[in-house]
Amino acid sequence: MFFASDNSGPVPAPVLESLTRANDGYSIGYGGDALSQDVADRIRTLFEAPDAAVYLVPTGTAANALALACLCPPYGTVFCSPVAHIHEDECNAPEFYSGGAKLTLVPGGDRMTPEALRATIAAEETRGVHGPLRGPVSITQVTERGNVYSMDELRALTAVAKDFGLPVHLDGARFANAAVKLDVTPAEMSWKIGVDVCVFGGTKNGLMGVEAVVIFDPARAQEFEFRRKRAAHLFSKHRYLAAQMEAYLQNDLWRDLAGRANSRGTQLVQGLTQAGVRVHNDTHANMVFFDLPRGAHRAVMAAGATYHVWGSLDGPADEMLMGRLVCDWSVQPEAVSAFLAAVQAAG
Amino acid sequence: MFFASDNSGPVPAPVLESLTRANDGYSIGYGGDALSQDVADRIRTLFEAPDAAVYLVPTGTAANALALACLCPPYGTVFCSPVAHIHEDECNAPEFYSGGAKLTLVPGGDRMTPEALRATIAAEETRGVHGPLRGPVSITQVTERGNVYSMDELRALTAVAKDFGLPVHLDGARFANAAVKLDVTPAEMSWKIGVDVCVFGGTKNGLMGVEAVVIFDPARAQEFEFRRKRAAHLFSKHRYLAAQMEAYLQNDLWRDLAGRANSRGTQLVQGLTQAGVRVHNDTHANMVFFDLPRGAHRAVMAAGATYHVWGSLDGPADEMLMGRLVCDWSVQPEAVSAFLAAVQAAG
Amino acid sequence: MFFASDNSGPVPAPVLESLTRANDGYSIGYGGDALSQDVADRIRTLFEAPDAAVYLVPTGTAANALALACLCPPYGTVFCSPVAHIHEDECNAPEFYSGGAKLTLVPGGDRMTPEALRATIAAEETRGVHGPLRGPVSITQVTERGNVYSMDELRALTAVAKDFGLPVHLDGARFANAAVKLDVTPAEMSWKIGVDVCVFGGTKNGLMGVEAVVIFDPARAQEFEFRRKRAAHLFSKHRYLAAQMEAYLQNDLWRDLAGRANSRGTQLVQGLTQAGVRVHNDTHANMVFFDLPRGAHRAVMAAGATYHVWGSLDGPADEMLMGRLVCDWSVQPEAVSAFLAAVQAAG
Amino acid sequence: MFFASDNSGPVPAPVLESLTRANDGYSIGYGGDALSQDVADRIRTLFEAPDAAVYLVPTGTAANALALACLCPPYGTVFCSPVAHIHEDECNAPEFYSGGAKLTLVPGGDRMTPEALRATIAAEETRGVHGPLRGPVSITQVTERGNVYSMDELRALTAVAKDFGLPVHLDGARFANAAVKLDVTPAEMSWKIGVDVCVFGGTKNGLMGVEAVVIFDPARAQEFEFRRKRAAHLFSKHRYLAAQMEAYLQNDLWRDLAGRANSRGTQLVQGLTQAGVRVHNDTHANMVFFDLPRGAHRAVMAAGATYHVWGSLDGPADEMLMGRLVCDWSVQPEAVSAFLAAVQAAG
Repeated sequence: MFFASDNSGPVPAPVLESLTRANDGYSIGYGGDALSQDVADRIRTLFEAPDAAVYLVPTGTAANALALACLCPPYGTVFCSPVAHIHEDECNAPEFYSGGAKLTLVPGGDRMTPEALRATIAAEETRGVHGPLRGPVSITQVTERGNVYSMDELRALTAVAKDFGLPVHLDGARFANAAVKLDVTPAEMSWKIGVDVCVFGGTKNGLMGVEAVVIFDPARAQEFEFRRKRAAHLFSKHRYLAAQMEAYLQNDLWRDLAGRANSRGTQLVQGLTQAGVRVHNDTHANMVFFDLPRGAHRAVMAAGATYHVWGSLDGPADEMLMGRLVCDWSVQPEAVSAFLAAVQAAG
Repeated sequence: MFFASDNSGPVPAPVLESLTRANDGYSIGYGGDALSQDVADRIRTLFEAPDAAVYLVPTGTAANALALACLCPPYGTVFCSPVAHIHEDECNAPEFYSGGAKLTLVPGGDRMTPEALRATIAAEETRGVHGPLRGPVSITQVTERGNVYSMDELRALTAVAKDFGLPVHLDGARFANAAVKLDVTPAEMSWKIGVDVCVFGGTKNGLMGVEAVVIFDPARAQEFEFRRKRAAHLFSKHRYLAAQMEAYLQNDLWRDLAGRANSRGTQLVQGLTQAGVRVHNDTHANMVFFDLPRGAHRAVMAAGATYHVWGSLDGPADEMLMGRLVCDWSVQPEAVSAFLAAVQAAG
Repeated sequence: MFFASDNSGPVPAPVLESLTRANDGYSIGYGGDALSQDVADRIRTLFEAPDAAVYLVPTGTAANALALACLCPPYGTVFCSPVAHIHEDECNAPEFYSGGAKLTLVPGGDRMTPEALRATIAAEETRGVHGPLRGPVSITQVTERGNVYSMDELRALTAVAKDFGLPVHLDGARFANAAVKLDVTPAEMSWKIGVDVCVFGGTKNGLMGVEAVVIFDPARAQEFEFRRKRAAHLFSKHRYLAAQMEAYLQNDLWRDLAGRANSRGTQLVQGLTQAGVRVHNDTHANMVFFDLPRGAHRAVMAAGATYHVWGSLDGPADEMLMGRLVCDWSVQPEAVSAFLAAVQAAG
Repeated sequence: MFFASDNSGPVPAPVLESLTRANDGYSIGYGGDALSQDVADRIRTLFEAPDAAVYLVPTGTAANALALACLCPPYGTVFCSPVAHIHEDECNAPEFYSGGAKLTLVPGGDRMTPEALRATIAAEETRGVHGPLRGPVSITQVTERGNVYSMDELRALTAVAKDFGLPVHLDGARFANAAVKLDVTPAEMSWKIGVDVCVFGGTKNGLMGVEAVVIFDPARAQEFEFRRKRAAHLFSKHRYLAAQMEAYLQNDLWRDLAGRANSRGTQLVQGLTQAGVRVHNDTHANMVFFDLPRGAHRAVMAAGATYHVWGSLDGPADEMLMGRLVCDWSVQPEAVSAFLAAVQAAG
């Protein structure tokens, strides 16, 4: 019953097998090897973007911060949700990589609305050089609160960005979970709706530590390459990043893994709803935010469940606390059933 | 006959086996797992530094840039060799991570002399706020030109730094090769001679991509932790960095791998010297810099050797060009013999 | 009827006279001259802080950004009001000077409440290295909406900062106006209530362009000096900054000028209130925020008044728009009377 | 006999008079006032560059650092002389403003040679992303060692930059002294020979603290404006910068002042040469570098001369030490004669 995070599970066998295959003889460093080139080509094909610049980095924070640094000058600002990972969980990495840009928070929840985005950008338009220059709009799909933007919602946001001539960054740490949930192609959820730079995440979906940054305008490639090296994210033994991504792309493993995680998420939502438990996110992929009395949280954890709760477990038993359940690809249906049974027992 | 670099060979079997062992079930992210904690303890033990702060990062550039950022304010300067990796091969990473510090080059070759270091620091002492504040001294061991500082040479450099009250950073991308060559312990080649922050490299010596940063003053730990996260080098699935390092430490694998590479280096030096070829570095570990006429380089490469040459292979056959041979752990004696035979044949 | 800003009026005669006096013969550059030293001493005396480090810079943004850079690491965050000048009007200068720190906005209006400040700091305490390190609390006195914190309100805010061990920065661009309004000494409104670094503004109160940064802990002096030079704010002909400040301190000119501006502010508040006009700021020094119908704004401006209005002057005549009136030291009572008459006429 | 620096003398009367004239009534802040606009137009006319973007900043370091930040990305490098002001006297300001760019020093003295510049740029061309991207070439005219590049020498340097497609920055802190010395127009010494961004210095030539940055490609204007504000160098009371520059341009005051300073320089060179004293700089404007025995330096200073000497005045009387004489506009011929007499007496 481990639902703490999707960065805590093991990697599937094909990833280790691919690493083993790649570990043969000599290969040129820094991404010049055949495997790295081939993997980049496969991602271009997957995104139906033959001219895209594609780069592998080891962490999602690196992918986001490097992408934003290419889209936002140091005297600019990035528009994002108040709970965006780039704002809440990257310890100033976007500010660091951009050389001092701001993040301007769009009022509301995890899903930005086009109205709030438009109003926020417009408000930043009024101060000339006294305020920052308007920079990229950053969208997180799946959001940090477990919701999946619909395609219409995404289009509405990118349309606002385009109205102001601003580029769009997609934080796709859980890109796979969203694409599977919406049953769309990577192209449909990126450049076809106006995304300029897309992070195609692998780490939260079963890889040891690889994210692909897909830049649809190749004119931005050189800057990214220098910024990646300067940020110490260009691996000398690049084949070991490429090998993980190769396995991820092979036989749509990325879709398979995301599908498993999403199914567990659905099983959780249905079970909790049937049990009369309030679920916060009205859409979902592999994360569920829900309420239980503190006492029930304690009982469920005592039964062996691991997950994150907002607030201390010490306190009045009947006080409601929000919990977060995250399913990685390896969670078994039995684990979900056991969790739901524990919730029932605690109810 | 592959002597292009020590970042181009495969990793030894124990590393893959350790990754496979580590890939079992769930573990807490971001280095909070037992394996990561255990590996840090082993490094503290290896360095005889029970209070040291120890961190794993994926690249040598990250290790150097983060270490220097903790030792040098943005208005300071780092003293290093003109051919130091931090100056020549990290695309401004130290400047970036430090927030704009300078590198002040100590005149001379790859091995700084205490006299040149002292004179350079003294010269920077004269301009008050018009020049940068004096910052750390950065020493590369093994140097970028293949030389190994003797213990006396290292002590002489750290003594100069201490005379000015400056901290010392050791770029140990090839720490293992040097320690084996000098037959000293990690403690002897670091804090016991005045090194404040030491990079214990793994990538160039057989790992996929892991370096340990050992900070002997634990008061500097918090800053490093925030800087590592901000720089996007804190891995969520940290166990896969730890697993590589675990294998590296097990049964002194790090010494074994470095010993192999150094032996090939010795074999090359001896063979080239016997063949009357000029070898540049008067000491060596696993790298050899040597001169051959351009025509001979062409012939040796035609015979199947791969290595770096300074200058174009197109030109007068009799012009002398410097070549660089780097042995990784996996180079076989037969490959060296074949290379030397090719040199003889080309002579 | 010029109420657009307190950076648009002329400087008083004593400032020009002091510049003329200072313009005699040779003097050492970069602040080493006797006048610069003497002015620093006078400020130390004024603040009853014999050990304080005191520096002159030409702009308020430079004073704030340099002060914050000394108080906040690049991986930290500054707590301030959502309408703070450092957030809204300095084009990322704090982010730039600090090397990428964040500003965390304390929910509410221009006057932070201790409750909101405490809750905001506490919320930032929970994420470890995933969020920024907690940094300084920045207080703007007079606020950007014209309010003057009472001494009790200031003490309550600094007390919260101290509870978390955080330093306090006071943006005193209008320090003089506040001190005169509250009838307190510079010491009482700074270090005696826990301010660590205070900006003693001159530019908005009659100088051409000089602000003093008063750092009560001299251990922070060296860092400030290097940061000021690095930021290109160390004047070679420093005597011309010092001369302005000398005139400002002579015979309490700074109090005299602020007193004049504040009196005009009071005259405006009283007149507008009597006229039944809503005034937003419940306390005031030299700024008044008020509501008039758009048509009335148009009529008052047609009568010759100059001031800032939130929103376009084109639109329905009866829609209420907020205006801002700022009195500099040189505004005459007659100008205020004329303005109030114009408002009456427009009513 | 004050020859310590050209930032230590008084400003000429017209500058104070212009400040007094400008100090009349209200004017819009931040450079929107008529005087500021007019002064920018006059500089465009002076430079025969009707489309140029022109900005005033208070210090030469600000002018250089802002200009370089617009010309060099954070992952780039600036090519300059080892004694360039941007390298030796700006405490990492170019590194700070650019976000971490390097300065690559062109071997040689204060005057770069086209051969050395070409070789240095070519050497930086070889490392791809491992080294920085090639950035602007920065030329200092008059050099920091008192020499004045001939027009042919300048053309040779800009030609090398253009061969590599690199922009050219001219540090013209002493632009006026050079233009008068060479008897050329500002246009001839800037865009007509390939300078992209020119600093037209005023501070060292008689102003309190104003430099004009002339950007010949207006497409770079917006970036400069945001960077200037972000760096806290946009003055609210901009008219007081403009007023100084207005006086400087009126009746070619800038040429008059530079002419005076240069004449004193010539008087010094001739007198010293006649006295058999070695003068280092083979060309000159208002600075002279010369050798005297330590004892003679002591005697000349005892006679009342003030200037900078390389090395301590304590030591063997007969050891040769280099001294630097700088003439500002206000130095009188009598002061030079007195100095030369003191040298004779000390001989």
